[in-house]
Amino acid sequence: MPEFLNQMDTPDLEAMGIHGWPYGYSDQVRFHELDPLNHVNNASYLSWFENIRIRYLQDYGLSSYGGRDDDPQIVVRQQSADYFAPMFRDERYVVTARTRLLKPSSLIMDYAVHSGGAVRATCSAVLVSLEQDGKARRPHKDVAVKRILARDGAEMA
Amino acid sequence: MPEFLNQMDTPDLEAMGIHGWPYGYSDQVRFHELDPLNHVNNASYLSWFENIRIRYLQDYGLSSYGGRDDDPQIVVRQQSADYFAPMFRDERYVVTARTRLLKPSSLIMDYAVHSGGAVRATCSAVLVSLEQDGKARRPHKDVAVKRILARDGAEMA
Amino acid sequence: MPEFLNQMDTPDLEAMGIHGWPYGYSDQVRFHELDPLNHVNNASYLSWFENIRIRYLQDYGLSSYGGRDDDPQIVVRQQSADYFAPMFRDERYVVTARTRLLKPSSLIMDYAVHSGGAVRATCSAVLVSLEQDGKARRPHKDVAVKRILARDGAEMA
Amino acid sequence: MPEFLNQMDTPDLEAMGIHGWPYGYSDQVRFHELDPLNHVNNASYLSWFENIRIRYLQDYGLSSYGGRDDDPQIVVRQQSADYFAPMFRDERYVVTARTRLLKPSSLIMDYAVHSGGAVRATCSAVLVSLEQDGKARRPHKDVAVKRILARDGAEMA
Repeated sequence: MPEFLNQMDTPDLEAMGIHGWPYGYSDQVRFHELDPLNHVNNASYLSWFENIRIRYLQDYGLSSYGGRDDDPQIVVRQQSADYFAPMFRDERYVVTARTRLLKPSSLIMDYAVHSGGAVRATCSAVLVSLEQDGKARRPHKDVAVKRILARDGAEMA
Repeated sequence: MPEFLNQMDTPDLEAMGIHGWPYGYSDQVRFHELDPLNHVNNASYLSWFENIRIRYLQDYGLSSYGGRDDDPQIVVRQQSADYFAPMFRDERYVVTARTRLLKPSSLIMDYAVHSGGAVRATCSAVLVSLEQDGKARRPHKDVAVKRILARDGAEMA
Repeated sequence: MPEFLNQMDTPDLEAMGIHGWPYGYSDQVRFHELDPLNHVNNASYLSWFENIRIRYLQDYGLSSYGGRDDDPQIVVRQQSADYFAPMFRDERYVVTARTRLLKPSSLIMDYAVHSGGAVRATCSAVLVSLEQDGKARRPHKDVAVKRILARDGAEMA
Repeated sequence: MPEFLNQMDTPDLEAMGIHGWPYGYSDQVRFHELDPLNHVNNASYLSWFENIRIRYLQDYGLSSYGGRDDDPQIVVRQQSADYFAPMFRDERYVVTARTRLLKPSSLIMDYAVHSGGAVRATCSAVLVSLEQDGKARRPHKDVAVKRILARDGAEMA
């Protein structure tokens, strides 16, 4: 898998003063993400969290997002976002992700948007691992569990 | 203000078996709202909740969304969505809204997506009423408070 | 196939003063379709044209959009849009579609957005019918060709 | 104005084998830009062309996009896109822009999407310079005209 554009790891993030996150990428606000209030629209943040979530889940080996039967379908069951400050046109930001809690066939991830030395928004998502039929639960792959515990220091429940 | 397209009030909603909601509209899933999993993308739901929120806030008199100084800017401070079942192409649905809790310069609203006799997703949002500078709090207009208490049976905190 | 929400046929359209179009639907501008200029963003019009195109192609029998091997994949090869006047929040509009020219494995469709007695935007699209591999051309089904010629008065090339 | 993220000038582009373009940026396909066919949705390309158009117009001095009265509002009057090949998840690409024809209060720009040594899509847009009322035409600033002629080798009509 080629590296994500502008992907960042712990040392990259630390160098920017962003501590406690193992995984991130940097980007810039686009015109079409703004709404008539001249702010980034609330829904656009979810796309940013989706960008990093899918990359993370592929990279850590939880799912290839290829739709094959030997692979789970990971779905968002719940997500909660806090918006601390508006974001503006051309603003540069970093999105970060980590797993907080790991269960046999689900996990809780945290995300944050950093800009100008502050956190602009955070999000917490409950993800469920399903068979490709979208119904039965499918346990995580061992290799992915090991990586998450090692890299993120996630708790196992 | 002209009526929203496919807007629904309590009797309309009751007739469809949707109880406890004073305000709604019906719509249909569009192709561009789907993602490669053939499901409605998580972010699209937020746009549906935004559609009804803005209509509701205008209709109840909390804000005209006109950007004028005699009018507050209502911003989303926090929102939390639960996704219970995937939604598919052309699926018809009803989005509903109500205020649960009203404070002097903020409120908590609930939203739901109904389809096929079931609830597909819910959301709860904390909204804050600000001056047009986006900083100082601005108390709700009395007329809007009265309407929300009367129509929605919201609690006052 | 259930009818599209707010779908319109020739008599419905004629009753609104919209002449020469066999197929349409009505809708209303949403907040998230606006950009910081307070206008509908140029890209949003393409989603409206996509909405009606997919409905039309299914309804006339050109493709079920089901991804099955006995069915073509219809792709947009070229499209050209004219924007005559900006559109604003909550504005109601009608989108119309028709086929102008039909070739053995392609077609040219026209679209328009009507509002307030005027045409706000038009689009012309060249669509190509492919096998599910997305490479080889696949001729249109006879039944679809007959419908397009009969309903739209399209030219056959 | 800070540099656009991943912005590219002529030497950068030439080094990638992209000739004849003075201005570009690189990016990567995001999950939410895909549709159920697993391709980038046609409308998403327009957002990419918008990204570079706005940056270009600011950078060359045609408009600051600030909504001030001493500044024009640049609107898209017409645009035409050719889609040559589908684009897929995580695909890296370069978007380029240049002005082809310059008139006193309008211009024609060309855009292209490059990936894997080929052109995936092109677009041509007619832009009109208006007063902030969105009605009367407003001639281009001399400094911007000079830059466009010098950097892009645009024709003057």
